Amino acid sequence: MNAPAQIRQDAALSPAQTLWDLTGDDMGAVDALILERMQSSVGMIPDLAQHLVGAGGKRLRPLLTVTAAQLCNYEGDAHHKLAAAVEFIHSATLLHDDVVDESALRRGKKPANLIWGNSASILVGDFLFARAFNLMVETGSMEALGILSNASSVIAEGEVQQLAALRNLAMTEADYMRVIEAKTAALFAAATEVAPVIAQRPVAERDALREYGLKLGLAFQLVDDALDYGGMASALGKSVGDDFREGKMTLPVIRSLQTASDDDKAFWRRVIVDHDQKDVDLEKAVSMLRTSGALESTMELAKQYSQDAADALDVFQQSSLRDTLKDLAGFVVARIS
Amino acid sequence: MNAPAQIRQDAALSPAQTLWDLTGDDMGAVDALILERMQSSVGMIPDLAQHLVGAGGKRLRPLLTVTAAQLCNYEGDAHHKLAAAVEFIHSATLLHDDVVDESALRRGKKPANLIWGNSASILVGDFLFARAFNLMVETGSMEALGILSNASSVIAEGEVQQLAALRNLAMTEADYMRVIEAKTAALFAAATEVAPVIAQRPVAERDALREYGLKLGLAFQLVDDALDYGGMASALGKSVGDDFREGKMTLPVIRSLQTASDDDKAFWRRVIVDHDQKDVDLEKAVSMLRTSGALESTMELAKQYSQDAADALDVFQQSSLRDTLKDLAGFVVARIS
Repeated sequence: MNAPAQIRQDAALSPAQTLWDLTGDDMGAVDALILERMQSSVGMIPDLAQHLVGAGGKRLRPLLTVTAAQLCNYEGDAHHKLAAAVEFIHSATLLHDDVVDESALRRGKKPANLIWGNSASILVGDFLFARAFNLMVETGSMEALGILSNASSVIAEGEVQQLAALRNLAMTEADYMRVIEAKTAALFAAATEVAPVIAQRPVAERDALREYGLKLGLAFQLVDDALDYGGMASALGKSVGDDFREGKMTLPVIRSLQTASDDDKAFWRRVIVDHDQKDVDLEKAVSMLRTSGALESTMELAKQYSQDAADALDVFQQSSLRDTLKDLAGFVVARIS
Repeated sequence: MNAPAQIRQDAALSPAQTLWDLTGDDMGAVDALILERMQSSVGMIPDLAQHLVGAGGKRLRPLLTVTAAQLCNYEGDAHHKLAAAVEFIHSATLLHDDVVDESALRRGKKPANLIWGNSASILVGDFLFARAFNLMVETGSMEALGILSNASSVIAEGEVQQLAALRNLAMTEADYMRVIEAKTAALFAAATEVAPVIAQRPVAERDALREYGLKLGLAFQLVDDALDYGGMASALGKSVGDDFREGKMTLPVIRSLQTASDDDKAFWRRVIVDHDQKDVDLEKAVSMLRTSGALESTMELAKQYSQDAADALDVFQQSSLRDTLKDLAGFVVARIS
C-alpha cells in the first residue's frame, strides 16, 4: 500500500535539499528577505502571509533562481531579491487560486481563505504581488522585470483559460497544454531565466535555463494532475480528487475520453458537466483512468518533459549544481509510483 | 430636489473634459493603448475588461498623468504607457473591490463579478495588474516603476486595513485618514508624480505634482464617503448607502460618533457592529449625520484638501493646463451640493 500523495511529495524533495545545501547561505538570505518583505503595520498581512509563505515552505521556485544564479557564477545579490519576488508571485497566485477553486485543503493544510476569509486572501495576494515588483525594482534589472511581469500576465491568462474550460468535456489536449504552460511552467521558466540575465551570460545559457524551467514546470504540473487521481498507486491519499470535484479538465481525463465507450462518456458528462457526483464516483473515475492507460500515458509525457529539462542543461559544464538540477527533474516525476 | 449622486458626479467632470481637449490627441492614444493591451486570446478577458475599462470611462487618473506630463513639457510617449498602466492598476483594484465589498452596483452599473462571477473578476484583475507592469517595463523608467509598484503595495495595504476595520466603531480619524491615503490618494499621487519623473524635471515640480495628486485623492475620497450618505442634499440617490450596508467606517460616521448621545451610539452599534439593519435605518443615519454636522465637517475637510491641491501647483507658471488642474480640484468638491 502506498503512502498518500502528500507524503510521497515531501519525500521527493531530496535533490531540492541537496540544492539548499550546495547553495550555501543563499536560501537563508532568501528566507530572511521573504520574512522581512511580508511585514506590514496592518497585522492581518503578516499573519496571513506567515501561514502560506512563512518559514518551512519548500521554496522550489526561489531555489531554482538561486541555483541557476550560482550555475551562472553570478556574484551580486540581486538573485536573492528575484528569488523572493518569484516566491511572492507564486504565493499570490496560490491565495487567489484557493478562492477561485474553493479548495478545502491545500497540500493537506487548511487554505488561508477558510481561516481569514476570501476578501483577506484576495487583498493579501495583491499585496504580495505588489511587493514582488518592489523587490524587482530594487534589483535595477529591467530585463528581469520584463521576464517576470510577462510571466505574471501569462499566469493570469492561463488561470482565466482554465476557469473558462471548467466542466467543458470538449477541452482539447492542446488547450490543456496551453493552460499548464501558462499557469505553471511560465513561472518556473522565468525563475530560471532571470539568473543568466542578471549574470549577463551568453544567450545559449539563457535559452538553456529557460528551457529547463519550462520543461520542469510542465513535468511538475502533469505529475500533479496525475497525482490528483492517486497516480498509478492503488490507494488514494487525502489530497486526491480536488480536480475531479471541481470539474477541472486535466490530461488524464482528456486522454481517457479519447478512447471512452458511450457509457464511460456518459459517466464523465454526468460528473464533470452536470457536476452530479456520488460518493463512489471518484473511485470509479480513478479505475477508468487506470484501465484506459490515461494515467500511465500522462506520466509518460511528464517523463519526456523531465528528460528534456535535464538535457537542456548539457550546455553547462559538469558540476554538482548542474547534476543536482538534472536529478531534481528526475525526482519530480519519481514522486509518483 | 437634488439629482441622484450618480448624475451629479458626471456633471462634475467638466474640467476633466477641458483637460481631454487641452491635451490634444494624448487621451485618444491612451484609450487605444488600453484597448490594445486588454486583449487576449482568452475571450473572457477582453469581454470582462471591456465592461469595466472599455471606451467611455472617465479615465480621471490617466488624464492626470497625461496632463502632468504636458505641464512638464514632456516630449516622449512614455506618458501614454504610464497613463494606461495607472488605469489598469485602478481597474484591477475595482474588480477585486467588488468581490470584497459584495457591491450590488458600482456607480449605477452592475459590477463584473455579478455577471462573470467572482473567480473571473479576481483573475482578470490579476491579468490587468500584470499588464500594467508590462507597460511600465516598456517605458524603461525604473523610477516610474518604483513609484507605481510602491503605490500598488500601499493600495493593497490600505484595502486590508479597511477590511480589518470593518464594523469596528473604535476606528479613529487617524486610522481612517491612513486608509484613504493608501487606498485612494496613493494612486492619484503616483499618477501625477511619474510625469515629472519621466520628464526629468526639478525635484520641486515632482514634489508639487505628487502633493497635488495626494491632496486631490484625499479630497476625492472624502467627497465619495460623504456622497454615500447623500452628501448635504435632501434626497437620496440610488448609489447611496453602500458603505452603510457594508458596515464600513467612514469619516462622517466617525465624526458623528464623537458627539453622539448614548442612544445614538446604541444605534450605530446595532447597524454597524451587529449589522442589524432595518429599512428605515439608512434614512435615520443620514439624518443623524446631517444634524450632528458630521457630513458638513467632512465636506469642509475635503475642501481644505482641494485647496491644498490647487495651491501645490503654484510652483508652475500660469497656463491653461495648470489652471484647469486647479479647477479640477475645485470641481471634485463641488460635485456635492
